Amino acid sequence: MNIKHYIGIDIGGTSTTVGLVSKAGKIVDRSIILIQDYASGPIEPFLDAMADAITELSEKHQVEISGIGIGAPNGNFYRGTIEYAPNMPWKDVHEVAPYLENKLGIRSVLTNDANAAAIGEKQFGVAKDFDDFILITLGTGLGSGIVAGGNVIYGHDGFAGELGHAIVVPDGRNCTCGRKGCLEAYVSIRGLLETYHELADDKVNTPQDIAAKAQAGDPNAIETFRKTGEWLGLKLADAATYTSPEAIIFFGGIAQSSDLFFPALKETLETNVHNLYRNKIKILKSGLPLNDAAVLGSTALVM
Amino acid sequence: MNIKHYIGIDIGGTSTTVGLVSKAGKIVDRSIILIQDYASGPIEPFLDAMADAITELSEKHQVEISGIGIGAPNGNFYRGTIEYAPNMPWKDVHEVAPYLENKLGIRSVLTNDANAAAIGEKQFGVAKDFDDFILITLGTGLGSGIVAGGNVIYGHDGFAGELGHAIVVPDGRNCTCGRKGCLEAYVSIRGLLETYHELADDKVNTPQDIAAKAQAGDPNAIETFRKTGEWLGLKLADAATYTSPEAIIFFGGIAQSSDLFFPALKETLETNVHNLYRNKIKILKSGLPLNDAAVLGSTALVM
Repeated sequence: MNIKHYIGIDIGGTSTTVGLVSKAGKIVDRSIILIQDYASGPIEPFLDAMADAITELSEKHQVEISGIGIGAPNGNFYRGTIEYAPNMPWKDVHEVAPYLENKLGIRSVLTNDANAAAIGEKQFGVAKDFDDFILITLGTGLGSGIVAGGNVIYGHDGFAGELGHAIVVPDGRNCTCGRKGCLEAYVSIRGLLETYHELADDKVNTPQDIAAKAQAGDPNAIETFRKTGEWLGLKLADAATYTSPEAIIFFGGIAQSSDLFFPALKETLETNVHNLYRNKIKILKSGLPLNDAAVLGSTALVM
Repeated sequence: MNIKHYIGIDIGGTSTTVGLVSKAGKIVDRSIILIQDYASGPIEPFLDAMADAITELSEKHQVEISGIGIGAPNGNFYRGTIEYAPNMPWKDVHEVAPYLENKLGIRSVLTNDANAAAIGEKQFGVAKDFDDFILITLGTGLGSGIVAGGNVIYGHDGFAGELGHAIVVPDGRNCTCGRKGCLEAYVSIRGLLETYHELADDKVNTPQDIAAKAQAGDPNAIETFRKTGEWLGLKLADAATYTSPEAIIFFGGIAQSSDLFFPALKETLETNVHNLYRNKIKILKSGLPLNDAAVLGSTALVM
């Protein structure tokens, strides 16, 4: 039990991955917990399932755990809590890192899932040489991790980087946060499906369905991704004025279809951005394997 | 000549103040240079006038200058340049800090005027206890200095914090930057005058004129400030999602009329901000005397 390892946890709206990670940054083993198995009750049995998974991974591989890093939606770095996460079954405020730290006696640190991805990208991915960048996660929601001067911006209350809840269409679509016109209501799994269904009569179930149609030449599917790129470009032109990033990096399932929305994104960004930033911002896809980045990012929190 | 002092320079669209500042942060003396005296020629005679003012102040008070701090519109911290400043007579890119450093042999540091004001506010004003705040300067333009985790955000290229050039009204008023609908086109001296003249038939020349009318009960003047607060509130609700500030601080002539636009600003901000940030952000007026803050902020750059 003397080889030090770390635990990286990626809490998502659908499933949670508990990864055992070596000092060298290799994911040795992982355990998956399905949110739906715990969604109808309080959060504690879900947290206990995470603790059990950690203990099992540690015993199975005969390694000591030096720290637990957790990425979670609406995660609060300062308090180790998940707070008012619209895409999780547990509303209000829930202590996660303190719960695991108390139960297991292992230092536990939690942050926003997008912040964790940004840290992972800087440590292991395409952001190695960037001190100023924005990482955007495209999944159930739209998350963002903002790095400025080499540091993740947490803000006063630990909630900085909620670019998904900047308004892109005044009085637009209803957002899960209760307001109207947030970027996330347009650019996310749900947003993409809604955009497609506004244009087309047939029904699709996933962004992958729309991407397949677009690759096959379906004009509504192509237009769905074009509009997606346009909405992103508009808000990223604004985002540039705040933190002047060297790069904006896209992460998550939808980012795999970057060929379909990067051209419109880049065109809209360059048209709308202040000339101080024009033709300076790199638009990139994550450099990490989709299944590993969130776990590695969470791990990097405690390394 | 052995008592160490600093020079703080505030370069503005109308005039430039060269201040001699003691180690204790007291402005000992100042020299004013009018931009119009140099506007028709190249920038070098203007820079030479600053260098002469520094030498004169140093000789007059028999003090050694330990450093020169400069706040300037579109100032670039990394390069010490003023770049593409729409409200200055010299367009393109001009080396300012390197020029003074070469000429005088004194370490010279330059940044955006709003960043300088933010540093001044943190060192000497109402932001002493804040590590995460946004300072907004309301003058010829709308500038912003963003402090996150105790550090000014400069961004990749030294131009972070151009909140005045985030779009508040898509396809709206023409902005001096060449685009349409920027916040600065609505909230600035020019913006306030334009808003008033859209509502009223009589002519006013300054925001102070409008403020006086509003104080006297003129409904168009009251509405001008109310709309100003509304536009600010809308964009600040977005700004909160980027850096989650503890406070937003207003600086400059128009900020003196805060009673006239803070109520609408606060209402619009709280209505439009994500619930993670609701009722958490302090809206404050600068705690520094209008004529000193920019010079003290610039000085703090080299202290």
